[in-house]
Amino acid sequence: MSTLAIVGLHGTMGSRVNALALTQPWIDRIVGVTLTPLHDHEYASLEDIKEPIDIIIDFSTSHQLESTLAYATKHHIPCVLATTGLTSFHEDLIAKSSEHIPLFVSANLSLGVALLKQLLSDSLHFLGNEIDIDVVETHHTRKVDAPSGTAKLLANTISSITGKTMVTSYPESEVKDKNTFGVHALRLGNVVGTHEVHLSLGEEIVTISHQALSRDIFAKGALRAAQFILNQKPGIYTMENLLKEKL
Amino acid sequence: MSTLAIVGLHGTMGSRVNALALTQPWIDRIVGVTLTPLHDHEYASLEDIKEPIDIIIDFSTSHQLESTLAYATKHHIPCVLATTGLTSFHEDLIAKSSEHIPLFVSANLSLGVALLKQLLSDSLHFLGNEIDIDVVETHHTRKVDAPSGTAKLLANTISSITGKTMVTSYPESEVKDKNTFGVHALRLGNVVGTHEVHLSLGEEIVTISHQALSRDIFAKGALRAAQFILNQKPGIYTMENLLKEKL
Amino acid sequence: MSTLAIVGLHGTMGSRVNALALTQPWIDRIVGVTLTPLHDHEYASLEDIKEPIDIIIDFSTSHQLESTLAYATKHHIPCVLATTGLTSFHEDLIAKSSEHIPLFVSANLSLGVALLKQLLSDSLHFLGNEIDIDVVETHHTRKVDAPSGTAKLLANTISSITGKTMVTSYPESEVKDKNTFGVHALRLGNVVGTHEVHLSLGEEIVTISHQALSRDIFAKGALRAAQFILNQKPGIYTMENLLKEKL
Amino acid sequence: MSTLAIVGLHGTMGSRVNALALTQPWIDRIVGVTLTPLHDHEYASLEDIKEPIDIIIDFSTSHQLESTLAYATKHHIPCVLATTGLTSFHEDLIAKSSEHIPLFVSANLSLGVALLKQLLSDSLHFLGNEIDIDVVETHHTRKVDAPSGTAKLLANTISSITGKTMVTSYPESEVKDKNTFGVHALRLGNVVGTHEVHLSLGEEIVTISHQALSRDIFAKGALRAAQFILNQKPGIYTMENLLKEKL
Repeated sequence: MSTLAIVGLHGTMGSRVNALALTQPWIDRIVGVTLTPLHDHEYASLEDIKEPIDIIIDFSTSHQLESTLAYATKHHIPCVLATTGLTSFHEDLIAKSSEHIPLFVSANLSLGVALLKQLLSDSLHFLGNEIDIDVVETHHTRKVDAPSGTAKLLANTISSITGKTMVTSYPESEVKDKNTFGVHALRLGNVVGTHEVHLSLGEEIVTISHQALSRDIFAKGALRAAQFILNQKPGIYTMENLLKEKL
Repeated sequence: MSTLAIVGLHGTMGSRVNALALTQPWIDRIVGVTLTPLHDHEYASLEDIKEPIDIIIDFSTSHQLESTLAYATKHHIPCVLATTGLTSFHEDLIAKSSEHIPLFVSANLSLGVALLKQLLSDSLHFLGNEIDIDVVETHHTRKVDAPSGTAKLLANTISSITGKTMVTSYPESEVKDKNTFGVHALRLGNVVGTHEVHLSLGEEIVTISHQALSRDIFAKGALRAAQFILNQKPGIYTMENLLKEKL
Repeated sequence: MSTLAIVGLHGTMGSRVNALALTQPWIDRIVGVTLTPLHDHEYASLEDIKEPIDIIIDFSTSHQLESTLAYATKHHIPCVLATTGLTSFHEDLIAKSSEHIPLFVSANLSLGVALLKQLLSDSLHFLGNEIDIDVVETHHTRKVDAPSGTAKLLANTISSITGKTMVTSYPESEVKDKNTFGVHALRLGNVVGTHEVHLSLGEEIVTISHQALSRDIFAKGALRAAQFILNQKPGIYTMENLLKEKL
Repeated sequence: MSTLAIVGLHGTMGSRVNALALTQPWIDRIVGVTLTPLHDHEYASLEDIKEPIDIIIDFSTSHQLESTLAYATKHHIPCVLATTGLTSFHEDLIAKSSEHIPLFVSANLSLGVALLKQLLSDSLHFLGNEIDIDVVETHHTRKVDAPSGTAKLLANTISSITGKTMVTSYPESEVKDKNTFGVHALRLGNVVGTHEVHLSLGEEIVTISHQALSRDIFAKGALRAAQFILNQKPGIYTMENLLKEKL
């Protein structure tokens, strides 16, 4: 049985991790770090926690990352880092800490998106470079970035395998350049998140897509990742490691 | 029984109109205008045709439009003008000729697209301005314009009813402006043409879409339009007139 | 300002109507009927309510309908009846009560589904009988009926306009009978509800579809219907009346 | 350079193989077997062909299979067998012949469908048995079987990995049995062929799909298979062998 610490306890994702962690048989205690601690299992910082912690899930902003890593390294606690907006400064910090503790790092902890990425990669290796590609992502209208972080992740996979360059729209009065592929962002109502990748070989089109019905998939993914790295050796782990273990 | 003249006989669409016109019970003779006349029913210009013509379908370029209208007006022949790339000069010519002869004018003669446009217009009137809209069109990779002419037609309908402005991609790091809507062009293999319009009301999305499986729908549409205007009074007719007659 | 009574207050939909009614400027007081009254605005039956009510929304089961109609008729209160599973016995009750009070009756109070039904009806009138039709609906895996009530509603619209008969699968080793159309139920995860209608004319396909992202659309629809019938004359009103007012 | 023999030369697929084979640099001569030989490279049976043949593609009916295999075995010629409707009798014949010559056997020679099958298999191994699955296939209205052969192929893959049983519709008034999955056939206009597989994990859905825009993909697949087995050892080869070589 393990004690879980959630950094960012009162955030959208932190509170869902908290709610879902209560149903996990391998977790018997949950503490949280939040700017506004209210109850006796809530703290203003990791340093304030008096009891031993087995695993940390950090769903907070990148500003918090340095202190989370310092605490985890000092106490040898594995971490799941679901933080977005990481810079090379943060990546260096993560690399150094990973020499001492196991770190699970992912901007999208959904199992389905991990599978989508793997299927995309396999398809691209199989279909070769003579294909046309378009990615379409749909999210709610309050989203501040376009394309989505996950769409950019998929675009990186496409670019690194095919050498093609991402564009967000095609030329107005010219044939599309074969060395480009489109990533199109739709913004509709309260859509949680949908990603579609279309791969065409002239007369046939293969499409692989992922639809999130609820943000809970990210909280569940964080708990799955936490359980996965609990007993791993120091190092950096990603959804690919989780995926390979299952395949 | 009628004699049909096809201007642009050897073009992609002209040759399909020819093939399909042969199966129409109301057509008993077909002549054609082409730069390279080969057989005795093929002519280099309308002026060369010696026999009386009942109806003209012009699927050629806008350069040919002036001479088609001159000939048709002189001989009182109704025309179906499926020419794309019309300028205001051409529109003036059409307006003048329509005082004397019936003219059916449309850049997309598909019945399904006409229906799509009507359903879109009805939906927009019903849903009001508080909605989010995204249009997605897919065509083959040899297409030289993006978005497609039909997508622009749909965008005009949206703008005129809602006052929103079309964009081809959303801002990279800002929330989408409520007064804009996206029109996204995908270019995949040999796709004939697909248009989807997504209308979202917060927690629900209504989508109306049209998929063309073959370019024959435009040739069939031209023949349907031809039969429709054969006995109309002088004036300009569009797919809306055809649609209303059926509804 | 009006007092709203919600019958079935603690049900899935009743509690959402309650939550959303609090944000409506035209409602200043909410009372509820529930089998387990806990607070002072909660009652075991309508008869127990001491204060005057302006409008009733009934999201309970059909067993409750008779007493709701008796109370509403006696006190001249307009009702929104979102009850499912109505038999001809209930329909007779509704017909009789509608001579005295305005009744809004609908098994699906979503604005988008009402629009879908209208677009379907218009499309069928336009496309005629020579088309092929398939309806696909997707719902969560806990749903006890297939096809969904809304899919059956769409199927009734199709049958009454085209004369075609619904089937839930096509013959194993025969060409599909032109006088039938398919209604296919998918059951996937936690999907709230999606309905797609495909209409094909040989070489082109028109698809109209509706996707519900949250059950709140039905609660919002109930409040909209309530506001609509508040000042109507006695009679039966449906989503079509609401739709026509807006179109 | 090779001589190709096409059995079923004048059939829909045979004539497309013929047209596309002319553009292949590794083929320098094409002969054909047809019930109605017209030209000097057309024969009533394989036995009538006087010149040496390097490879046979058989797109005819299963009735022809026995004589194709007899001829190919006698002359040691590799074959691509795209015949549908094979019984266990035919499978025995194929097994025996494959001791002497390389045979490529597939009811669907599309590269994209082979990829779809592989992605489906990988996804099922990854997602485990706790998922819900629905397959939707769409074909033209003249198709005589439902579900399609390819949908059955996908269903076999699903059953053998998950142990679930295929149904073509869910119970009318019961929750879907978790040990079943749906395969739904749509029949719309002239659709060449679309297959979609939806895999749901509660709050997320992964969809993989394939759309054929033209029957040419099967002719191209037959030529690719022919080139693949030209220099293989005796045995039975399928699209999986072709796929693995590429992956």
